[in-house]
Amino acid sequence: MSNDSDAAIQSIEWREDHLRILDQTYLPGREVYSDIRDVGRIWEAIQKERIRGASAIGIAAAYGLYLGIKELPNDSFHSFSIEVKRLSEYLESARPSVRNLQWSLNRIQKTIQAHEEKEIAEIKDIVLKTAITIDDETKRGCKKIGEYGMDLIPKKARILTHANTGSLATGKYGTALSAIFQAHKNNTDLKVWVSETRPLLQGARLTAWELKNAEIPMTLITDSTAGLLMHQKEVDLILVGSDHIAANGDSAGKVGTYPLAVLAKENNIPFYVAAPFSTIDMELQAGDAFSHEERESEEVTHFEGTEIAPSKVEAYNPAFDITPNKYITAYITEKGIVKPPFEQNFKELLKRN
Amino acid sequence: MSNDSDAAIQSIEWREDHLRILDQTYLPGREVYSDIRDVGRIWEAIQKERIRGASAIGIAAAYGLYLGIKELPNDSFHSFSIEVKRLSEYLESARPSVRNLQWSLNRIQKTIQAHEEKEIAEIKDIVLKTAITIDDETKRGCKKIGEYGMDLIPKKARILTHANTGSLATGKYGTALSAIFQAHKNNTDLKVWVSETRPLLQGARLTAWELKNAEIPMTLITDSTAGLLMHQKEVDLILVGSDHIAANGDSAGKVGTYPLAVLAKENNIPFYVAAPFSTIDMELQAGDAFSHEERESEEVTHFEGTEIAPSKVEAYNPAFDITPNKYITAYITEKGIVKPPFEQNFKELLKRN
Repeated sequence: MSNDSDAAIQSIEWREDHLRILDQTYLPGREVYSDIRDVGRIWEAIQKERIRGASAIGIAAAYGLYLGIKELPNDSFHSFSIEVKRLSEYLESARPSVRNLQWSLNRIQKTIQAHEEKEIAEIKDIVLKTAITIDDETKRGCKKIGEYGMDLIPKKARILTHANTGSLATGKYGTALSAIFQAHKNNTDLKVWVSETRPLLQGARLTAWELKNAEIPMTLITDSTAGLLMHQKEVDLILVGSDHIAANGDSAGKVGTYPLAVLAKENNIPFYVAAPFSTIDMELQAGDAFSHEERESEEVTHFEGTEIAPSKVEAYNPAFDITPNKYITAYITEKGIVKPPFEQNFKELLKRN
Repeated sequence: MSNDSDAAIQSIEWREDHLRILDQTYLPGREVYSDIRDVGRIWEAIQKERIRGASAIGIAAAYGLYLGIKELPNDSFHSFSIEVKRLSEYLESARPSVRNLQWSLNRIQKTIQAHEEKEIAEIKDIVLKTAITIDDETKRGCKKIGEYGMDLIPKKARILTHANTGSLATGKYGTALSAIFQAHKNNTDLKVWVSETRPLLQGARLTAWELKNAEIPMTLITDSTAGLLMHQKEVDLILVGSDHIAANGDSAGKVGTYPLAVLAKENNIPFYVAAPFSTIDMELQAGDAFSHEERESEEVTHFEGTEIAPSKVEAYNPAFDITPNKYITAYITEKGIVKPPFEQNFKELLKRN
């Protein structure tokens, strides 16, 4: 429900009484849009990564909660709020370690508590409005991230990015990719190295698709080719997203982000993390407290049903790794660029805005 | 033609008048052995990675050269040696950046020059004997590498390895994997993290297959999961192979080796490179002079014929990266363990043996 009339792809859109999503599991081969009308299918879409990316998951979960409560009986607030809690826990279980999923559901739950005295029917409308606000704010925030981030991208920059942080990850615009899109619009003459991002290939499938749509010059690489490129001085900066940020600036991101950060530091390359403030968890002091998500072994051992490894070989398949704050040059947020010391500067930006 | 009667897999075997190879492109799904009787099929097998791994390529090229010359006319040495040169260049073109390929062909060419006065028919027999010697020496050397390398592996070690450095890579035993096999035989109670090694998945397909055959406990990971494991103190040492080593100890290895080395140093984990002395090129001062091998984009953009990335997206697909000597804790060779300063210590071992 963002009002911007630009050409950016919209991967999540509320349509009066249902959610239309671009199903990312079919990309880049096919553009399949699905209309979702119940909370169970929202859960499934998040869990199977039909919708993915921290911000996009946050938006989808908000609408999902609304779809879950809208048919509940309009009688007791007590039983209504028990059901809200149950549905929130259910939605959170789809991707338990994604910060924005919790953040989005918490925000709606707080709104419900704040309107306890109202009629249930009215509260349901308020929940929908809150979901729409989360959606709007996220998309507007992503546009701002792009505008701030653009200033960090020099002319003719060769940028390396990982995973997918575009419109597909946030509903519209993206985080790290938003900065790339904005810079490209402003004729920065840039070139992007896209790491494929095993095992689910979000880089090869999704980021390459978004950059190609936007006609931005790009070259695909395997994840472990990034080291060679940095060592050969073929990378001017690295731009990635984040799934969870601690108060001290430690970041949990798509697995493979931490190696890029270490390699960037070793090769004196700036390493930027783009994320909305909703990803920052000021109550979490440092990254060692992040929760972990271990995904199915088969995502690594199989490719589209074909066995890659010998039968019965097990894979360890974590979704995220942790990048300690010392490797991060700056954060790009919708409130501006944040340099170290992160904790202090996060707090100042939160106070000011 | 190695005489050891142990259970190790033999991936390359000379059988009187032809070479039998285990075709690695079918693994791990099928064990397909091919009998090769002409030089053109040796070239194709090296180029398509049916035979791969620096040492195995060196052995195959030696037999390939013999297969190429054995039907040549037995008249003028001059025209015979022109043909030898042409065939050597042809074989080298299959994988131009593999050190052992050049090394093996140079050794045979020098042997031919040294017997210039002999009958061509006799020289042909000498070439075959030299190929068999290269084969034998390589396999015996790999067994020694395993015995020396074993001493660096503590009880209950959790070892991370990359690409394939086993019997499949050297004809028999392997380099880095040889040390793992020996340690396992001696009840070290070890565990191996196998990085899948994109794009051709030599880790997932070949190393996993060899470790499984040897009943060594292992877990597969995507290449970029290695960083997280090191950061979480789940790795005690890293053991990899090399395709080309400069006099100063810089190493060219399977792409993805350099990131592992940088991450190991950052996390205080020993990083060992196992390779026979034939991989060391004392005439090459440092790694910046290594030749590069760029492979087809389709190896990255396609998986078994299926397009992974959007159509027309190009990938950069280098075979190797360079690990500067400062990241390498020690080399494991058939003449012993070599610690820094590498150049001096390489020279001393060469003098002694």
